[in-house]
Amino acid sequence: MRQPIIGVIGAASVAAAGYETGRQVGRLIAEANAVLVCGGLGGIMEAACRGACEAGGQTLGLLPGPDAVAANPWVTLPLPTNLGHARNVIIAHTAQALIAVEGEYGTLSEMAIGLKLGKPVVALDSWPDLPGVIYATNPAEAVERALGGIGMGG
Amino acid sequence: MRQPIIGVIGAASVAAAGYETGRQVGRLIAEANAVLVCGGLGGIMEAACRGACEAGGQTLGLLPGPDAVAANPWVTLPLPTNLGHARNVIIAHTAQALIAVEGEYGTLSEMAIGLKLGKPVVALDSWPDLPGVIYATNPAEAVERALGGIGMGG
Amino acid sequence: MRQPIIGVIGAASVAAAGYETGRQVGRLIAEANAVLVCGGLGGIMEAACRGACEAGGQTLGLLPGPDAVAANPWVTLPLPTNLGHARNVIIAHTAQALIAVEGEYGTLSEMAIGLKLGKPVVALDSWPDLPGVIYATNPAEAVERALGGIGMGG
Amino acid sequence: MRQPIIGVIGAASVAAAGYETGRQVGRLIAEANAVLVCGGLGGIMEAACRGACEAGGQTLGLLPGPDAVAANPWVTLPLPTNLGHARNVIIAHTAQALIAVEGEYGTLSEMAIGLKLGKPVVALDSWPDLPGVIYATNPAEAVERALGGIGMGG
Repeated sequence: MRQPIIGVIGAASVAAAGYETGRQVGRLIAEANAVLVCGGLGGIMEAACRGACEAGGQTLGLLPGPDAVAANPWVTLPLPTNLGHARNVIIAHTAQALIAVEGEYGTLSEMAIGLKLGKPVVALDSWPDLPGVIYATNPAEAVERALGGIGMGG
Repeated sequence: MRQPIIGVIGAASVAAAGYETGRQVGRLIAEANAVLVCGGLGGIMEAACRGACEAGGQTLGLLPGPDAVAANPWVTLPLPTNLGHARNVIIAHTAQALIAVEGEYGTLSEMAIGLKLGKPVVALDSWPDLPGVIYATNPAEAVERALGGIGMGG
Repeated sequence: MRQPIIGVIGAASVAAAGYETGRQVGRLIAEANAVLVCGGLGGIMEAACRGACEAGGQTLGLLPGPDAVAANPWVTLPLPTNLGHARNVIIAHTAQALIAVEGEYGTLSEMAIGLKLGKPVVALDSWPDLPGVIYATNPAEAVERALGGIGMGG
Repeated sequence: MRQPIIGVIGAASVAAAGYETGRQVGRLIAEANAVLVCGGLGGIMEAACRGACEAGGQTLGLLPGPDAVAANPWVTLPLPTNLGHARNVIIAHTAQALIAVEGEYGTLSEMAIGLKLGKPVVALDSWPDLPGVIYATNPAEAVERALGGIGMGG
């Protein structure tokens, strides 16, 4: 049986608190035996990949450029798409649920695509007041709600 | 010299009032001698293409599927991308400014990509309270603000 | 009624003879009242756009990068896709028939996609011996065969 | 350290002999501790994924449609791209080397993109006489040449 795939989205730059949040989200995804998919760059993406790796998990990085070398060190499987922002749409199709941590316009765009596709979209310290988004207050709740949204909740 | 290219985004289903708004936006874009680019389907996209055609303008339809036959009748140049929602990103790159009329998650996603790319994004009866969006109250103001945002204002 | 859209594919670098061939192909496409679509860069793409423009035609340039500024001067409607080589697939979907002039691996890739999609693919001084390709010996024959392949032949 | 990623390309329909060839290629890729990437559907893609799985390997399936359900049963990580044939370009970027087994126009297109990107492209019972392609005569030689082409040869 295939492992579930959970997407983590968020900006490429992040302060220390956000980094720690992303790392915990990644760790909890791996501990739930799910694969993490993200945009493969720095900031929240790196934090989440790092957390997942530290818990022995696997991380798919769908990179905007043509070269795997741009992946953060905790991407275990880099996929250079060379599609720029269009790679966000692949993340939304690939992930069974999305967790947004903080984030700017790119994250908002991805949340909207996830909602359009009918995926569970969980937000943590991210864009407020979006109809359809599941708002969580901490990493454990975020991962629980994402897994619950795809029928994997404990 | 090339004509400016203005994007119109909005949902594929629309009530009569929204259709008329979209049609006026399209007409004003054509009257300003700009080319309209959109997703090529029905609803706001059709309304805007129709308005542009009725004013003698040209309309590019970047379609989600593989076949030009899906274009609304007022698309003068259909481009079937077969990229699904990823075609939205091409619209955001192609348009020098975007005008959102009403719209749902797909439109929100496209507004966010436009903002991410630093394009002027004008909203008319669309998603409220987005930082960076230019809010207009009628078609004339929307088109004026879009053209003004790319240095073409009267 | 919409104008037919004919694709011209070929490498971004070209010698003088190939440039003249591309230019004639472009001119004949425009004289047949068809729109030209291409990758928007230099070499064969520029030659064909130039020929089409000189005959009063319209040229769509589906660019690999994010910025219209990369288009050759004879692209009347630049569409920056930011999709790299994946933009070739959009050209194959958009064109009703493809004409390859000379060309390298990128052109071969595009010819193959065109054949896969069931489009007429005409070759002029290009990759030899491909099953399904229509081989022409001069620009007039190439454009005639392309138009004939979509039911527009004189 | 990341595992190498090897692409296997070939048609979605295949006879018994080709299926067995694809399966051996997949098995040898996994035995070399490399990850297999492919288009995720049937035929050669399924055969190669099956061989890799049977040897305990991992398989990435970049699917043309929007839904993971279309993946063959031996894809361990399905990535639905919804990009149609444009997903081939991602495979060419993601794989460090490509092995073509048999194949039709889609495979030819992908071989050409791989060559354009400067990747080692190995062919087994596939399109003949392409300059730059490494022709192999059996699965062991094909996988050896692919790994050798990225500096992983024994």
